[in-house]
Amino acid sequence: MDPLIEGYRKFRAEIWPTERARYEALAHWGQSPETMVIACSDSRVDPQTIFAAVPGELFVVRNVAALVPPYSPDVGYHGTSAALEFGVKVLKVARLVVVGHGQCGGVRAMAFGPPPQARDFIAAWVEIGRPAVEAAGEAQEGRQSRIEAEVVRLSLANLMTFPWIAEAVAAGRLVLQGYLFDVHTGVLASVGKEKLTPVE
Amino acid sequence: MDPLIEGYRKFRAEIWPTERARYEALAHWGQSPETMVIACSDSRVDPQTIFAAVPGELFVVRNVAALVPPYSPDVGYHGTSAALEFGVKVLKVARLVVVGHGQCGGVRAMAFGPPPQARDFIAAWVEIGRPAVEAAGEAQEGRQSRIEAEVVRLSLANLMTFPWIAEAVAAGRLVLQGYLFDVHTGVLASVGKEKLTPVE
Amino acid sequence: MDPLIEGYRKFRAEIWPTERARYEALAHWGQSPETMVIACSDSRVDPQTIFAAVPGELFVVRNVAALVPPYSPDVGYHGTSAALEFGVKVLKVARLVVVGHGQCGGVRAMAFGPPPQARDFIAAWVEIGRPAVEAAGEAQEGRQSRIEAEVVRLSLANLMTFPWIAEAVAAGRLVLQGYLFDVHTGVLASVGKEKLTPVE
Amino acid sequence: MDPLIEGYRKFRAEIWPTERARYEALAHWGQSPETMVIACSDSRVDPQTIFAAVPGELFVVRNVAALVPPYSPDVGYHGTSAALEFGVKVLKVARLVVVGHGQCGGVRAMAFGPPPQARDFIAAWVEIGRPAVEAAGEAQEGRQSRIEAEVVRLSLANLMTFPWIAEAVAAGRLVLQGYLFDVHTGVLASVGKEKLTPVE
Repeated sequence: MDPLIEGYRKFRAEIWPTERARYEALAHWGQSPETMVIACSDSRVDPQTIFAAVPGELFVVRNVAALVPPYSPDVGYHGTSAALEFGVKVLKVARLVVVGHGQCGGVRAMAFGPPPQARDFIAAWVEIGRPAVEAAGEAQEGRQSRIEAEVVRLSLANLMTFPWIAEAVAAGRLVLQGYLFDVHTGVLASVGKEKLTPVE
Repeated sequence: MDPLIEGYRKFRAEIWPTERARYEALAHWGQSPETMVIACSDSRVDPQTIFAAVPGELFVVRNVAALVPPYSPDVGYHGTSAALEFGVKVLKVARLVVVGHGQCGGVRAMAFGPPPQARDFIAAWVEIGRPAVEAAGEAQEGRQSRIEAEVVRLSLANLMTFPWIAEAVAAGRLVLQGYLFDVHTGVLASVGKEKLTPVE
Repeated sequence: MDPLIEGYRKFRAEIWPTERARYEALAHWGQSPETMVIACSDSRVDPQTIFAAVPGELFVVRNVAALVPPYSPDVGYHGTSAALEFGVKVLKVARLVVVGHGQCGGVRAMAFGPPPQARDFIAAWVEIGRPAVEAAGEAQEGRQSRIEAEVVRLSLANLMTFPWIAEAVAAGRLVLQGYLFDVHTGVLASVGKEKLTPVE
Repeated sequence: MDPLIEGYRKFRAEIWPTERARYEALAHWGQSPETMVIACSDSRVDPQTIFAAVPGELFVVRNVAALVPPYSPDVGYHGTSAALEFGVKVLKVARLVVVGHGQCGGVRAMAFGPPPQARDFIAAWVEIGRPAVEAAGEAQEGRQSRIEAEVVRLSLANLMTFPWIAEAVAAGRLVLQGYLFDVHTGVLASVGKEKLTPVE
């Protein structure tokens, strides 16, 4: 038994019949999501699930640690920045949401270095998070949690280095928000400048 | 009324109670997904939904057009490659699945160029897909669909340029698969070397 | 920078000086256009541009899908019919031109229903086009294009249900014509009873 | 010589070559206008010309007197309301602009009644403007100009009776603006609550 294929059959049997009209409208009219989410690739933190979202609702980037690099329009392959450009300039989303989470392996790699066998790309990628690691301070007690919150703040700050994001925010056309999801309690918290506020 | 917060409340009321034990185990033991998915950011093609997956089941990268760049371990920020390294070398997934889809805006950008207002990053990113555009040929009839299938084949071929992926595949520890999702009919097709086969 | 205001300044600097005498004459004598155009609201299909028209040349109605409802002089608000009455009975235009176009969102709404979030008015409005949808037949291949042509034919037929239009046409004082504009190729085609003929 | 066909040939020869890339991108990506304009059908007041707009820039309704009826989602054919729904809910324009003008025949019909030969539809249509006629007062000196400004204010007020327009305005996603164009001087004035301010 193949779990992916079993899952797809369940989708066909249980989800497709009720969502069919929505998918057909989305096929005819194209997508028009209000919200873009930058979330972690972690299998426990699926934004579609956490926000109980319907098809067409969320334009989603998922990468290691939900990181946004600073604006840097050079010739390299910038997957996250290209997705941001698509979401903000082509789809004109009204909301950009960064979703970090507890026990993040990407944050662990920032704090302690990646596992020795995995240093082709992870080390360079999590280097984006260095300012967050520094902002979190040296105190060991709760350090990983502090870095996790600082990484969300850093991604939000990096978003503002994209001129067309800063401009849309200034014009009131775009809102930026940060959240942290706690896998253990299932609680989502809003990430403010100073503290976390659980969403009621 | 905020649809994201409403969605989260629905998650808390309807999903969390039945999934709580799973999330708690995933918090205590860490994630251990069998499958890694590379899918498109498109809001209509959420892999968690299409595979009716449970928390902890899928490690997910989502970027524009579900593209995998060729192996290139230089100093740039390689978000997708870093996630692949995390999935294959740290989490040791047994399966790598590329999910493309119909009406893909990223493929449209490959075929016709990005919209004029969005050329900071998208043009460079979809350049990864150039061999797929060439493989699809010039015939206009059905060209976008042909490119969509070729992009999945290209991403699968690029995965094999990562030495630790090729090695794991050769050793039988890792399987690569490609699928295409049709938004209009909700049908998933397996992408073979020559043709597409709808999943029954 | 406000693009509308910038555009107006460009009008003042570049268009007004050469068109000033024409505008002044049009202010002193009133408008006396030879042609009335019913075109779509679509931003890509501006009749003033496509016909390279000068101020005073075209009396223009623009609505969703360039639809003309059948004659129905009841108490409702009939914006398009009121404009027709103004054009034909007050301004005495010699020519009534319906301009449809490819990729029309209004025709898409006729064929597949409006997007779910937009059903206060669009559904009722595009109901005018139902006979065109039926005339286009069920074959999926090229269906939207066939409907687009049938909508132009339907609007021309509906124009003839207005007694004072039918009368003016019978008397040779008024000519009705239908065109389709292809956004992709920029080609205008004349809509005949059976086929389209590109304008040379 | 047919002036429309001559105009189209001029478009093909002089406009298409420089605008071709823009039209092709608009064909591939669909329209995405920032602004919707409600303007008069009058042949002297073409908004594409006055705002020196490019293809794809303005989604345009043109009817007699640039009137917006109050929100009234009944079963009648509401062409202007359907276009508003398309612009605001489907295209998500950021700006709704009402453009009235001097010497408006529709306003004349409001003030003095339509010509006797044209009372099938115009009388009912311009009835929408009755509150503007009353707001303009009885003084004969400058009465038509006062009504013209009041009609713009009325259309702006009627726009706010559409719940999804009021909501988008409240959320900062949509801006409403009114202008009056003077055919004789070519000057555009911004219509404020109390007075007109020429645009510099």
